[in-house]
Amino acid sequence: MQRSIATVSISGTLVEKLSAIRAAGFEGVEIFENDLLYFDGSPADVRRIADDLGLKIMLFQPFRDFDGVSPERLERNLDRAKRKFDVMHELGTDRILVCSNVSPDTICDDSLMIDQLGALARAAEAAGVLAGYEALAWGRHVKTYRHAWKLVDAVNHPNLGLVLDSFHTLSLNDTPDAIADIPGERIAFVQIADAPKLAMDVLEWSRHYRCFPGQGDFDLANFTAQVVKAGYKGPLSLEIFNDGFRAAPTTITAADGHRSLLFLEEQTRALLEEQQQPRKTTGGLYRSPAAPAHVGYQFLEFAVDHTTRTQLADWLGKLRFRQAGQHRSKDVTLYQHGAASIVLNAEPDSFANAFFQQHGLSLCASAFRVDDASHAFERAAGFGYAPFSGQIGPNERVLPAVQAPDGSLNYFVDETPDQPTLFEADFVLTDVNGPTEVGPLERIDHVCLSVPASALDTWVLFLRTAFGFLAEPGVLVPDPYGLVRSRALRSPDGSVRIALNASVDRHTAVAEALHTYHGSGLNHVAFSTGDIFSALPEFVADGVPILRIPRNYYDDLAARYALSDTLLEAMRANNILYDRDERGGEFFHAYTEQLDQRFFLEIVERRGGYDGYGAANAAVRLAAQAQRRK
Amino acid sequence: MQRSIATVSISGTLVEKLSAIRAAGFEGVEIFENDLLYFDGSPADVRRIADDLGLKIMLFQPFRDFDGVSPERLERNLDRAKRKFDVMHELGTDRILVCSNVSPDTICDDSLMIDQLGALARAAEAAGVLAGYEALAWGRHVKTYRHAWKLVDAVNHPNLGLVLDSFHTLSLNDTPDAIADIPGERIAFVQIADAPKLAMDVLEWSRHYRCFPGQGDFDLANFTAQVVKAGYKGPLSLEIFNDGFRAAPTTITAADGHRSLLFLEEQTRALLEEQQQPRKTTGGLYRSPAAPAHVGYQFLEFAVDHTTRTQLADWLGKLRFRQAGQHRSKDVTLYQHGAASIVLNAEPDSFANAFFQQHGLSLCASAFRVDDASHAFERAAGFGYAPFSGQIGPNERVLPAVQAPDGSLNYFVDETPDQPTLFEADFVLTDVNGPTEVGPLERIDHVCLSVPASALDTWVLFLRTAFGFLAEPGVLVPDPYGLVRSRALRSPDGSVRIALNASVDRHTAVAEALHTYHGSGLNHVAFSTGDIFSALPEFVADGVPILRIPRNYYDDLAARYALSDTLLEAMRANNILYDRDERGGEFFHAYTEQLDQRFFLEIVERRGGYDGYGAANAAVRLAAQAQRRK
Repeated sequence: MQRSIATVSISGTLVEKLSAIRAAGFEGVEIFENDLLYFDGSPADVRRIADDLGLKIMLFQPFRDFDGVSPERLERNLDRAKRKFDVMHELGTDRILVCSNVSPDTICDDSLMIDQLGALARAAEAAGVLAGYEALAWGRHVKTYRHAWKLVDAVNHPNLGLVLDSFHTLSLNDTPDAIADIPGERIAFVQIADAPKLAMDVLEWSRHYRCFPGQGDFDLANFTAQVVKAGYKGPLSLEIFNDGFRAAPTTITAADGHRSLLFLEEQTRALLEEQQQPRKTTGGLYRSPAAPAHVGYQFLEFAVDHTTRTQLADWLGKLRFRQAGQHRSKDVTLYQHGAASIVLNAEPDSFANAFFQQHGLSLCASAFRVDDASHAFERAAGFGYAPFSGQIGPNERVLPAVQAPDGSLNYFVDETPDQPTLFEADFVLTDVNGPTEVGPLERIDHVCLSVPASALDTWVLFLRTAFGFLAEPGVLVPDPYGLVRSRALRSPDGSVRIALNASVDRHTAVAEALHTYHGSGLNHVAFSTGDIFSALPEFVADGVPILRIPRNYYDDLAARYALSDTLLEAMRANNILYDRDERGGEFFHAYTEQLDQRFFLEIVERRGGYDGYGAANAAVRLAAQAQRRK
Repeated sequence: MQRSIATVSISGTLVEKLSAIRAAGFEGVEIFENDLLYFDGSPADVRRIADDLGLKIMLFQPFRDFDGVSPERLERNLDRAKRKFDVMHELGTDRILVCSNVSPDTICDDSLMIDQLGALARAAEAAGVLAGYEALAWGRHVKTYRHAWKLVDAVNHPNLGLVLDSFHTLSLNDTPDAIADIPGERIAFVQIADAPKLAMDVLEWSRHYRCFPGQGDFDLANFTAQVVKAGYKGPLSLEIFNDGFRAAPTTITAADGHRSLLFLEEQTRALLEEQQQPRKTTGGLYRSPAAPAHVGYQFLEFAVDHTTRTQLADWLGKLRFRQAGQHRSKDVTLYQHGAASIVLNAEPDSFANAFFQQHGLSLCASAFRVDDASHAFERAAGFGYAPFSGQIGPNERVLPAVQAPDGSLNYFVDETPDQPTLFEADFVLTDVNGPTEVGPLERIDHVCLSVPASALDTWVLFLRTAFGFLAEPGVLVPDPYGLVRSRALRSPDGSVRIALNASVDRHTAVAEALHTYHGSGLNHVAFSTGDIFSALPEFVADGVPILRIPRNYYDDLAARYALSDTLLEAMRANNILYDRDERGGEFFHAYTEQLDQRFFLEIVERRGGYDGYGAANAAVRLAAQAQRRK
């Protein structure tokens, strides 16, 4: 399908917006009237700029408060419309969005509205343009697409069509299912917006909290499927009012917008195929290589220098990781414990080294084990993420990789039976045929990334599109100096879990602004164990420093849960935190002290199918860490 | 009255909070349970720290979901309560806040709740403490203070009282008038919070958007008056959940909290006196010197160096300001036009010079003409704003001054009949008895200050408390790279108007973090004229550069308003912007180009009682300026 976006969705001047929109891959654009008003040039100049870029102006919008008015007002509104039709001719677009009247003095009379929309249709016909009528969720009289369609259908004029906007339908919990019954050629335009489910006034929600498909909570695939079934052949166009996007870098936001539409098309196609719709219905929708069915962590790679390598290797040793191999051509060491593999990269003049120069000790790469690495890579690259190729030595494996939003690398790894494994190919392995030491840790449970607040939505979209991960709703956690916005994503089977934390406290806000924080990436890695109560004392005996939890926390636990004194005492003695879900699943977890002010490790034990991350305890941890930093 | 604040209202660790609360002047504190949980010490340690500071722990809170439960749950809840009573003994406080149950499985039965609250009262009696029951606005069954009081009254036990919170009452548009009929000794505690009127879910609103009295839209004076009339003798305690406060500097927020309570007491006293309540009723309320009845601009003082003085003097000259005097002892020059006086201060080793070093060309002082300067100063100082005394020469006037939130000075000036005026005393005036040149400008219409987003509420409170100014609701204005939050304040008769703009765009966020922006203060000064259409061409002829407005703006004006072609053409030719209010008042205004990237001037003409600032045009101006900066 054609892909379009409204200029209001991204930041910048009109020329910056148009350039970024084209660069992102969109074919068309909606000109939001304010962007034209602020532009110091004629509408014809805008047309010329768009033409030069190869961008089609799909729509001019919005035209407000036309319908349900007094006869005198109608005359003025028609005069106003004609002036806008002139602007449209100059812009070179044939379509204008007319939204339902929100004025308190709207005359709520369908037959009057039909008459007046008929007059508008005739004026549009005379001007050779098409008016599209849209129900605003907060319209005075017309709030739903069904009502708007009833009026448009009654006018029955080729120069008046219906405009659909997913937000206006889904924000009211209205079903989009009747869209499929509207003749596609009568749908003048389709706007797409996602949004987090928020309990607030719908107008405020719409004006400030919309987001791109895949970043919010709406079922947009079903909405879009109805549009496709109706036979609509026009563009899908993003119209996103979002305070964050208004302040975010123009090109990044535009690129996210484009890939969010590809993702929506993929989901819509899947839904239509599931419903066994005819092939021609889905033909125009983007087809991407399928997301990997199974994803696991192959390894996490840290950028280190010699000092931090010594520190981290020391900690890993105390956590019973063994040094499992040395890279054949680089200053790179492999550590393993259970199914967890950690790579420390101190190679000079490498990507890792550049990353270290910028971020210090940090997660410079994550390698994901998949069934078909090139297939997985093609999917990620197809969504517009930049491919990366590093230097490799002879006989070493070439790993396809894309860059994450912070510039770190995401490798895809597969293994072929009877061929050397990645580790065998690239590393001189220690004691390769000997028994693997069995320690108390099982695997990487989850990785927690600290990201700038302005990049949180970009990260969510990255993990959803490139990897096909599922996103959980966001949560807010207080820290002593602000709030942390947290959102967890996971592979469908839960083998890979990534929690994104965006701090809005004043320290990180400043660090972010100073670019000392942006993309620092790692905050902590959690390893799972089957028995935290025996594992922790071992680690402590070996010298792993565990973050001390205030005693008051345990007094409150005792008041909140019926826990045995023995268990409580064991938790208290080991600084283990506790959470319980609604189904009785339990989570025991402890944190190490911080290694370098912003990096630490976590040991977790999940019982009874507990599926979260102990979010209830995050504030206790943040406060304890803040206290330790003093 | 005693003044208290909940620890949740400000940022920091518990110890930081307690210190800041005491330093701000509070007598007591509510310990919010999470702050205790995060504190690595015993409740007795907290008591000792508070004792050492001379701070009384007024309340421990919250205790949730006690009432309307099954018998088994009741037993557990009573056990939970007893554990919390133990904590209270350690903390050395006798009061706990019990809030109405929000659980979906609450048993909505008043007589059951009365029984259960009775059991709680007896447990409290046994422990020697007082439980206070509070209706949450989003309680499952009990949502209003009247309902809560009905239950507490029925229990009729000395160890169960009522807790009031202004937010829970006023957020529901409930009237507080029945509070006066509740026996004061049955009111266990009173919490105070203001909030902007927002159309959103009340729980979200409460958790994130509360603010200090005077910063929001609630009628707190009436609420507090009812509490006073009831005969309540306990503390007024601020309980503010605010995302901004959580990230703001601890000491500033605590100080704002304290002065906001003084301000509330002053307003409450005024209301009670107006209602001719007996003197003993108002005796405990803070009495401040009254705010000045009339305030005008005496002068605005800019910190300049020789280069920027030359630039600014050149602009002022082109705007027909005359050089009216030279300071007797300092390198300070006075410019006047109509009733507008501007002072350029280039004195080395002065406050102005220090301000210039930090902020560049900036507004380093505002002088306000009042009837009684020492009275006005005492009021401002009484609200805790820091007094300032500069160096003065022989026979020059000592001006009382306080520091504004950005560190700039606010002078108070009065004049005594038959004595030299301030300007006569401090300046060698030019042509002092000659005719004052009559130019097209009348006076300073308003001053627009750019403030950091985190300081906007602090500024609002400063102007409301120290000066008694009135605040208008905030508005949001888009700029090409983000949003500007704008709020206007004015003296009661409108002679002084100050618009505060807090940019949330990415450029200023960074500048703010780098401290190159904080306190830069001035954004622009607007001068009024009686005839902008004749004044502007004169200024342009003299070389004043006027900001060019996009032509599309005028095409849209033509579509929106029935304006004559002549008027439209005159506006277009002079780059004059237009706004109209609902009563037909009109606003014509034009901006100069920027003098140094962030400072410019505005010429305005108000017609027909127009009382705003052309907020509808701010986005056009911001876009035009952004375009010019490229």
